[in-house]
Amino acid sequence: MMRALVLKSGELAYASDYQAAPPTPPSKSSLITVRVLQAGICETDLQLVAGYMGYEGVLGHEFCGIAMEGKYAGQRVVGEINCACGNCEYCQRELGRHCPQRTVIGILNHDGAFADQLYVPEENILPVPDSVPTEEAVFVEPLAAALEILEQIEFNATDRIAILGDGRLGNLCAQVLQQQPGEVIVLGRHQAKLDRLDQLGIAAALADNVLAERQFDYVVDCTGSASGIESALGYVRPRGTIILKTTIAGTQPLNLAPFVIDELTLVGSRCGLFAPALQALEERAIDVRGLIDSRFPLEQGLAAFERASTPGVMKVLLDISDE
Amino acid sequence: MMRALVLKSGELAYASDYQAAPPTPPSKSSLITVRVLQAGICETDLQLVAGYMGYEGVLGHEFCGIAMEGKYAGQRVVGEINCACGNCEYCQRELGRHCPQRTVIGILNHDGAFADQLYVPEENILPVPDSVPTEEAVFVEPLAAALEILEQIEFNATDRIAILGDGRLGNLCAQVLQQQPGEVIVLGRHQAKLDRLDQLGIAAALADNVLAERQFDYVVDCTGSASGIESALGYVRPRGTIILKTTIAGTQPLNLAPFVIDELTLVGSRCGLFAPALQALEERAIDVRGLIDSRFPLEQGLAAFERASTPGVMKVLLDISDE
Ligand SMILES: [Zn+2]
Ligand SMILES: [Zn+2]
Ligand SMILES: [Zn+2]
Ligand SMILES: [Zn+2]
Repeated sequence: MMRALVLKSGELAYASDYQAAPPTPPSKSSLITVRVLQAGICETDLQLVAGYMGYEGVLGHEFCGIAMEGKYAGQRVVGEINCACGNCEYCQRELGRHCPQRTVIGILNHDGAFADQLYVPEENILPVPDSVPTEEAVFVEPLAAALEILEQIEFNATDRIAILGDGRLGNLCAQVLQQQPGEVIVLGRHQAKLDRLDQLGIAAALADNVLAERQFDYVVDCTGSASGIESALGYVRPRGTIILKTTIAGTQPLNLAPFVIDELTLVGSRCGLFAPALQALEERAIDVRGLIDSRFPLEQGLAAFERASTPGVMKVLLDISDE
Repeated sequence: MMRALVLKSGELAYASDYQAAPPTPPSKSSLITVRVLQAGICETDLQLVAGYMGYEGVLGHEFCGIAMEGKYAGQRVVGEINCACGNCEYCQRELGRHCPQRTVIGILNHDGAFADQLYVPEENILPVPDSVPTEEAVFVEPLAAALEILEQIEFNATDRIAILGDGRLGNLCAQVLQQQPGEVIVLGRHQAKLDRLDQLGIAAALADNVLAERQFDYVVDCTGSASGIESALGYVRPRGTIILKTTIAGTQPLNLAPFVIDELTLVGSRCGLFAPALQALEERAIDVRGLIDSRFPLEQGLAAFERASTPGVMKVLLDISDE
C-alpha cells in the first residue's frame, strides 16, 4: 500500500492506501521498482483528468526517482514513458514510442509516478548525471517532447517559425528551436511569461499584437487549446507546416479545405528520446528551473492540480520523497 | 452575349444570353479569348454548387479550346487555372498556384469554361500536341492535380500506398502512383470501377473488404467525402502520411489527437503543373479515355451536372463547340 494520486471514473483523488498491481508492459525486460523523488504535472495530466484517453490509474509521467533494483540500484534515474515490445517493426526502427502494444507510464495501462513508487521496465531507465539536480531531471520528459520536433523537421536559416503558446511546452520548444537555424518568435497571452522568454534572448510577443497574415513557414501549436489549430491556420503560409503538439480530448469542428487549397502540411509531434534531453540538461543548454512555479507535497496533490490548471501557471512539482 | 452555365446565389442555371465581363487577374499578361471546345465536370464543381468557396460566376476549369488571339491563335490550347501576379515570392518560386492575389478560372473571381468562350492570361496557355485528342486534353487539369503529389512526396520502394476512392481523381492518382516506387492499392466502393483499375494492372479492392489496420505508409484521400479523413486515419500507420485531395465545403468534427499520438503527417495537395500532365498524355502514359462516362451539349448542362453527381459516375464532358 502506498500514497498515490489516482484517476478513476473521471475523478482525481488522493489515496493513502493505494494497492498497486504491477503493470504488464509487453517487453520481457524486468520491471524495476522506482521510488519517486519528484514529479511534474503536465498539460497531458490535465487533459487526462478531462477525459482524454479514458485513462484510469495513477497519473504522472514526468519524474525522477531512485531505482530500487537492477543495474542502477540506489541511483537517481528517469524512465522513458513508452514501454514497448522490443520486437515489432517500430521497435526495430528505434520507434518504440509507437509500438502498438506499448503501455505508457501514467497515460495508458501503466500506473504512473504521482505515488511513492512505480514500476518501470529496466530497459526504459536512464541514470541521471550527478550534475543534474532532481528538480531539473523531472523535465527530461517534456524536454524530450520538445526535442522530438528535431527528429521530424529540418529547419533552414531562412525559416520563420512561430510558436503559439508561452506555457510550459511552448517555452521548452522555443528554447530548443532557438538553437536551430531559422528565426523564432513565441506568440503568447501572458506578459510575464513573454518577458521571461525575452530574458532568455527569445523573441516573444502578445498574440493579439501580431496580425495573422500567413507569414510563417512553420507554426508550432503549443497552446494546449482546441482553438490553437485555427490560430495556426491564420499564421502559416501557403505550403507551410503546422507542427501540432496540442492534444485535446474529443472532437472539434475543423474546416480541412485550407489544408488542400494552401497545400499545408500538418505534423503531429509527441514524445521524444530521453538521452538527448538528459544531455541537454547536463550541458545546461536549456533553462528549466525558470519554469518551476511551485511545489506541493503529494498529499496536497489536488491543490497542486488546481494550481497547475490555473491559467498562466508554469510547472508545478510534487515533492514525493527526500533522497 | 453567349451561352454559359452560371452559378449564382447557390443556384446553377443555364443562360443563353450571359454577358461576360472580363476577369481581372493580377498579372500584366494579355487576356486571350479562348473558344471552348470541350470541358469536364469535376468534383470541385459539385462542391462549388454546394457552396464551397462561395463562388459566383461561370463554372468550369477543365477545358480544351481554340485560342482566338496571341501566339497560339487558331491552335488548340489548355490553360493553367491559377492566374497569378508573376511577382510575389510564390510566383518567383514557380508556385504561382499559391499567389495570394490569384484568380482561379471557374473557382475564384474568374469566369470559367462552361461557356462559349472564356478569358485566359496568355502566360497560362499551353498548346495541345496534335496527337492528343481534345477529349483527352480536357483531363490535363485533373491529371496535373494527381501529378502534384509527386511534387510534394518522394516515395520509396518499400512504401505501401492506399488510395481511398475509385472515382475520377482516385483513378488518376492511382495511375500516377502506380508508376512510382511503392505498392499501390485502391480502396473503393464500386465493383465496376475497381474492375477497370484491375484492367489497368492496378490492385483494387472494396474498402469494406480491407480491414483498417493502420497498415499503410501513405493514404491518399480521394473520396470527395467528409468521411474520407476518418477512413484514412484507420488505414494510416503511426508516423505515416495522409495526402488530402478531398475538399469539402464547411467544417466537420475531427479528433486531432491521433495526429499527435501517432505523429501522423497530413499533406494537402491541390493543383499541379500542366506541362508534365500534357507530356504524360502525349506519351500515352495515362489512360483517361476510360474515365469518360458521357457527353452532354452545353444546353443540357444541368442534366450533365445531375449525371456527374450520381454516385458511381466517372467523368461527364460538355460538348461546347466543334472544331
Ligand atoms: Zn507530459
Ligand atoms: Zn514494439
Ligand atoms: Zn477539377
Ligand atoms: Zn504572385
